[in-house]
Amino acid sequence: MEEINNIEVVPCTESDYLKPFRVHYNQNGTKKSWDFMRTHDSVSVLIFNTSSHCFVLVKQFRPAVYMCEWERNKTQPPQSAEKTEEGTAEAAVPESQEDQSASEKEGSSAWPAATAGITYELCAGLVDKPNCSLEEIARQEVLEECGYDVPASKLKRITSYRSGVGVTGAKQTMFYAEVSDDNCVSAGGGEPLEGELIEVVKVPLHEAMTFAYDERIPKTMGVIFSFIWFHNNMSPKYKISTNV
Amino acid sequence: MEEINNIEVVPCTESDYLKPFRVHYNQNGTKKSWDFMRTHDSVSVLIFNTSSHCFVLVKQFRPAVYMCEWERNKTQPPQSAEKTEEGTAEAAVPESQEDQSASEKEGSSAWPAATAGITYELCAGLVDKPNCSLEEIARQEVLEECGYDVPASKLKRITSYRSGVGVTGAKQTMFYAEVSDDNCVSAGGGEPLEGELIEVVKVPLHEAMTFAYDERIPKTMGVIFSFIWFHNNMSPKYKISTNV
Repeated sequence: MEEINNIEVVPCTESDYLKPFRVHYNQNGTKKSWDFMRTHDSVSVLIFNTSSHCFVLVKQFRPAVYMCEWERNKTQPPQSAEKTEEGTAEAAVPESQEDQSASEKEGSSAWPAATAGITYELCAGLVDKPNCSLEEIARQEVLEECGYDVPASKLKRITSYRSGVGVTGAKQTMFYAEVSDDNCVSAGGGEPLEGELIEVVKVPLHEAMTFAYDERIPKTMGVIFSFIWFHNNMSPKYKISTNV
Repeated sequence: MEEINNIEVVPCTESDYLKPFRVHYNQNGTKKSWDFMRTHDSVSVLIFNTSSHCFVLVKQFRPAVYMCEWERNKTQPPQSAEKTEEGTAEAAVPESQEDQSASEKEGSSAWPAATAGITYELCAGLVDKPNCSLEEIARQEVLEECGYDVPASKLKRITSYRSGVGVTGAKQTMFYAEVSDDNCVSAGGGEPLEGELIEVVKVPLHEAMTFAYDERIPKTMGVIFSFIWFHNNMSPKYKISTNV
């Protein structure tokens, strides 16, 4: 259980991570403009452990997800189930939110439980090393985040797509990596120096499709898509029902 | 073919659409902070036309995707295939990009073809009407963007997931809508007053899986995932091979 407290939200006037730009252009003769953010492309990796017949995912506290849940709690009446899980988030009144309405201020002390910000995701990383292939970047993420050391040549490309089309237009390439317990060289967990606090979790193959479609388990679309991709393309190899 | 020209990029100091915030917090006793953006949740809809046995998608010019391709072209040697498609983008030198490096400035006049910014997506929209159910918002988007008038009760919920976990933490709920030619009441195309220039396109069911995995066709993960979902869950009903 993550312990999240002393939460404070402030407007962000300058950021090393969020750099908004505006593009003006003519589309079919009509003058238009669009605000967007520059970002890096990314890779994600579906990891399957052939020793334990489990998928290997990462689980972490995502501040942006947590803040999104906080917003939802302010504007909607409290709901049971998901929202009442035990958590350790402590109340703290945000400062300097000059653009917040009175009603938003009233609700700002009701921080949801820390679990509201936790998501299950594929192992993933940004393409921010110019001389590395996508496979090499994916290999490094599998090692750093999940602790498995596999050669880049063993990464199978699944497909690519736009991970965002409104604010960012970045491309994500998804890979599939088969690992075994023999490849496990560390506990993973990300780079603490980069502030990563990542928990490595295993989802047994026979529970995967139930996991994928259980909306009570917060996750990215990549988890759902890749589990179904495996079911359609790899399951026969393992002669195991994935319980669809 | 979209005609995109007179392109100019400027830093965006204030935006109605991009509002960066910073959250400070303690995670397991460690002081951390994270920059994020507030955004609305969204809905997306896989539309299947039972008269023509086609999926109905939207196709539009996405400035953020276009700018991402421009970045890629600057840092990588030109590639053939995708990059040399005929296009109408005209060169224009961006102004006020004070934070650009010299090498970036050199490449800035090489705008890619307009096709570089065009993506195929599911019909989708933001959840920005507080008194509307997700189904009702989805229904409105199907009508506005694609021209089909179907009751909200005919929308089947597929699942939900986080559409972003780094910058935004928004939730997207995906629906499935069966429509027929009888439901078609307009050409769709979005709200011109909101600046939407959307082309409605049909993908025949028997071509869907080839379309989904063809990386030369720029698309969102939602298109790929939903086509596979249909293949696994709905295809038997239509007794048609989807050519996997």
